[in-house]
Amino acid sequence: MAADRSPGAKAVRRKLDIMRGAAVAFRDRGYAATSVRDIARLTGMTPGNLYYYFRNKQEILYFCQDYSLDLLLRQARRIRRKRVGPEAKIRELIRTQMLCMLDELHGSAGHIEFHAIPPPRLRRIIAKRDEYERVLRSVVRDGVRRGRFAPCDEKLVSLAILGAVNWSARWFRADGSRSPEAIADSFVDYLVRGLMQ
Amino acid sequence: MAADRSPGAKAVRRKLDIMRGAAVAFRDRGYAATSVRDIARLTGMTPGNLYYYFRNKQEILYFCQDYSLDLLLRQARRIRRKRVGPEAKIRELIRTQMLCMLDELHGSAGHIEFHAIPPPRLRRIIAKRDEYERVLRSVVRDGVRRGRFAPCDEKLVSLAILGAVNWSARWFRADGSRSPEAIADSFVDYLVRGLMQ
Repeated sequence: MAADRSPGAKAVRRKLDIMRGAAVAFRDRGYAATSVRDIARLTGMTPGNLYYYFRNKQEILYFCQDYSLDLLLRQARRIRRKRVGPEAKIRELIRTQMLCMLDELHGSAGHIEFHAIPPPRLRRIIAKRDEYERVLRSVVRDGVRRGRFAPCDEKLVSLAILGAVNWSARWFRADGSRSPEAIADSFVDYLVRGLMQ
Repeated sequence: MAADRSPGAKAVRRKLDIMRGAAVAFRDRGYAATSVRDIARLTGMTPGNLYYYFRNKQEILYFCQDYSLDLLLRQARRIRRKRVGPEAKIRELIRTQMLCMLDELHGSAGHIEFHAIPPPRLRRIIAKRDEYERVLRSVVRDGVRRGRFAPCDEKLVSLAILGAVNWSARWFRADGSRSPEAIADSFVDYLVRGLMQ
């Protein structure tokens, strides 16, 4: 299938390019110290061109979070519906989230910088995060009910999993010795083993 | 034993009070949006009084990180020297770090806000963090060598544990339904079960 060359599709592609440049900048120097100019340079655009797509840095941060959460939620709902057991589901959930963090967002702290988003938008982001957490928790609960997973505090265990995965934004380096896939495999093995009976 | 009433001891106590006020403020509104005035109010001091102990907000953040890392490192070295097996050591390490995060620092993001610290001091903080991570990793490695823990990528598993624990700064609420002790117990159970053969 040919790539979609409509003006709308082009705008989305440009926004994703900008998001990835921003992800690298936020990771390397922090959100507060990153300028729109830095992001433009990393994206290979002029600042004027970038302002055509986003009014300011806050809008880029919001787009980073909103886009990645939509992506994660779509995947999570798809995985939850699958006709497989809770162990296969939780493995795929953790792996998918990890690869989204490391591949798509370059392990960006942009994904986890909360406070810079103003309240009305922050509420929407938090609602999406809460929904993602609920999907994860429901899979853990299902595994416990079926006796596949050890009895546990499902909420706390879900938060431990999310923390382990989200924290990768702090230490992942794309030029490190381990590939995103190898990292995801190690995390899945360890985090799922802790659930098992 | 009577409390130390020397001027030096009083200054340390005041600095710890300020650190705890700052921890709450950083958690609730983020480091960037917190003013020295906010921290003074939460500590029950005047801003003028607070400036006697810290020149600015960055110094408070540095003190938060430096103090808590020194505390964690002292505990970690003590635990590593104990004549107990790797499972008991890792349980105590995780539990101690979790309680330090939740009790001492009120789950403060002040503990994890890296980028606001200027480079020379940041290097010292990172060196201490690295040392803490090395202690954790050495205990994991020891458990694997002795056949108590399942074979794993010790570095990645240690980062998963640190992430799960550090992330608690994002969701812990002192007025929540679970006590720090109950949370620490759940985390220890889950995170250690994932290590076992």
